[in-house]
Amino acid sequence: MEMIENYKNDFIAYLNEKIKVNEPVNLYEPIHYILQLGGKRLRPILTLMTCEFFNENPKKAFDAALAIEVFHNFTLIHDDIMDSAPIRRGKQTVHEKWDVNTGILSGDAMMIMAYKCFENYEPAIFKKLMLLFNKTSLEVCEGQQLDMDFETRNDVSIPEYLNMITYKTSVLVAAAMKMGAIIANADENEAEAIYNFGLNLGIAFQLQDDYLDTFGDVAVFGKQIGGDIAENKKTFLYLKALEVCKENDKKKLLDFYTTNLNSKNKIEEVTQLFTRNRLKEITIKEIELYTNKAFNVLESLSISKEKKGILKNFGLSLMKRTI
Amino acid sequence: MEMIENYKNDFIAYLNEKIKVNEPVNLYEPIHYILQLGGKRLRPILTLMTCEFFNENPKKAFDAALAIEVFHNFTLIHDDIMDSAPIRRGKQTVHEKWDVNTGILSGDAMMIMAYKCFENYEPAIFKKLMLLFNKTSLEVCEGQQLDMDFETRNDVSIPEYLNMITYKTSVLVAAAMKMGAIIANADENEAEAIYNFGLNLGIAFQLQDDYLDTFGDVAVFGKQIGGDIAENKKTFLYLKALEVCKENDKKKLLDFYTTNLNSKNKIEEVTQLFTRNRLKEITIKEIELYTNKAFNVLESLSISKEKKGILKNFGLSLMKRTI
Repeated sequence: MEMIENYKNDFIAYLNEKIKVNEPVNLYEPIHYILQLGGKRLRPILTLMTCEFFNENPKKAFDAALAIEVFHNFTLIHDDIMDSAPIRRGKQTVHEKWDVNTGILSGDAMMIMAYKCFENYEPAIFKKLMLLFNKTSLEVCEGQQLDMDFETRNDVSIPEYLNMITYKTSVLVAAAMKMGAIIANADENEAEAIYNFGLNLGIAFQLQDDYLDTFGDVAVFGKQIGGDIAENKKTFLYLKALEVCKENDKKKLLDFYTTNLNSKNKIEEVTQLFTRNRLKEITIKEIELYTNKAFNVLESLSISKEKKGILKNFGLSLMKRTI
Repeated sequence: MEMIENYKNDFIAYLNEKIKVNEPVNLYEPIHYILQLGGKRLRPILTLMTCEFFNENPKKAFDAALAIEVFHNFTLIHDDIMDSAPIRRGKQTVHEKWDVNTGILSGDAMMIMAYKCFENYEPAIFKKLMLLFNKTSLEVCEGQQLDMDFETRNDVSIPEYLNMITYKTSVLVAAAMKMGAIIANADENEAEAIYNFGLNLGIAFQLQDDYLDTFGDVAVFGKQIGGDIAENKKTFLYLKALEVCKENDKKKLLDFYTTNLNSKNKIEEVTQLFTRNRLKEITIKEIELYTNKAFNVLESLSISKEKKGILKNFGLSLMKRTI
């Protein structure tokens, strides 16, 4: 995975070169702040890697990778306002460190900055990238809306949930990869295949996030365990449990989720309920299903076996959260 | 001005055809709502008119006109949140009718929708429009930030104020016109000239807004008179008054603006102070200065005298707020 580290370091160097605190300082300081908070830089790495795998210099994909990362961080600022989240990556969120108005406006400016990142591509490539970016970023907003809608709904189905996480999370991972292919002038079918690889991997990744929030290890997950249960979040585990539990446990679960107890006890009891109803095994199976879908798509690609192996390993390491 | 009415009606018909309430409804309903609130549709009219004046079918400019109007209304939603404004065009603002989160997210989606409007232009024109749109929309955010910064500053100069209103208001009017020229494949110098016409007209228009807020007629202005004074807004009148008043009135004005009295008495007293210091005449002169700058730019254009006359009359009628 030294290759991944190299992509990451190159990308961070590029980001540091490009994202400066311009005037008015109160607009650009929060933008600089969130982009310096770290994170896996998963999406830009995927853009660079895909570009290189389709035989183009990954440097050509720096701007698209930056656009994706800037856009992703814009969504974090606005989502954190909507969720009233005080902490992001172990530091204060933008609206906490400054205020809500700063978060709104700096976020708006970031979205435009993301669009500006594409300006150096020549018109034909530029337009292809923009069409994909427009489609994707609107889907991300729709995903966020669905997520908010689900909070007050009691009839969310598993397909609806999968659709929501696809929009909210996976389409951006998929687009990050497809942009690498577009910049490398890859065949359209290949670009579409790599999009579908990213899409399925993104779904698997999000399902794993649900899994780790309940069954993970703080050291690996990097977040407090049980947060979703404490906040009554309708995750895959919760929705699937309502589907598979017998009446007794179903009633118990619904009761737990209508109270606002943020107690250790609640987290323990719901976790036990999930465990005895085999949600651990069911969720792992679902994660594997989408990981395998991603790997199957990979097979159809014309890139070398070696490259396929690297993409597969990258996917597997993501699933182990070792990178 | 029948021509203007025709542009407006054609534009509204196009808007109604294009802006539908899609799923998720909670995301798109507020967008539909704000776009149906009415308004002068000044910017899209200017896009269509400019396109036709440079000898292209104005229908070709519908999409750019729509992009500008959608973007403008996005800024209204987010600005109204930042200003905690309850009313817009006589109706509830989006965050009042729904909530702040809805306002944030629907606004975000609108910005992307504005970008999407350009998708039907062919790559070369598309890229030109996007570069202008990126530049302009980032400037609008910077203008909004400067406006917010000024609230807590006591040393705002007139040039800084003019720079702020240029970014916050005028660049979008200017870009609306330049887009019409770009779509009509006008000569670059001509496109730049029409941009500068719009820019100066936009500044004049905003200065006139400051003027009317204090010295206007409710029936013409459409808003309560004295609102800026009540809210201690640092308008051109206020900043210029600090420059031209003798010590006594200057001290009085500063005192008025540090209190939070929202009294009829305060509005009356400050208006009298402005009047006796000739702010009425000074501001009218400044408005004329920018109107004349706009008209001078117009002279350099190669379009017919008749078309110049129409643009000039349109500018004058704007200044009279008769349309």
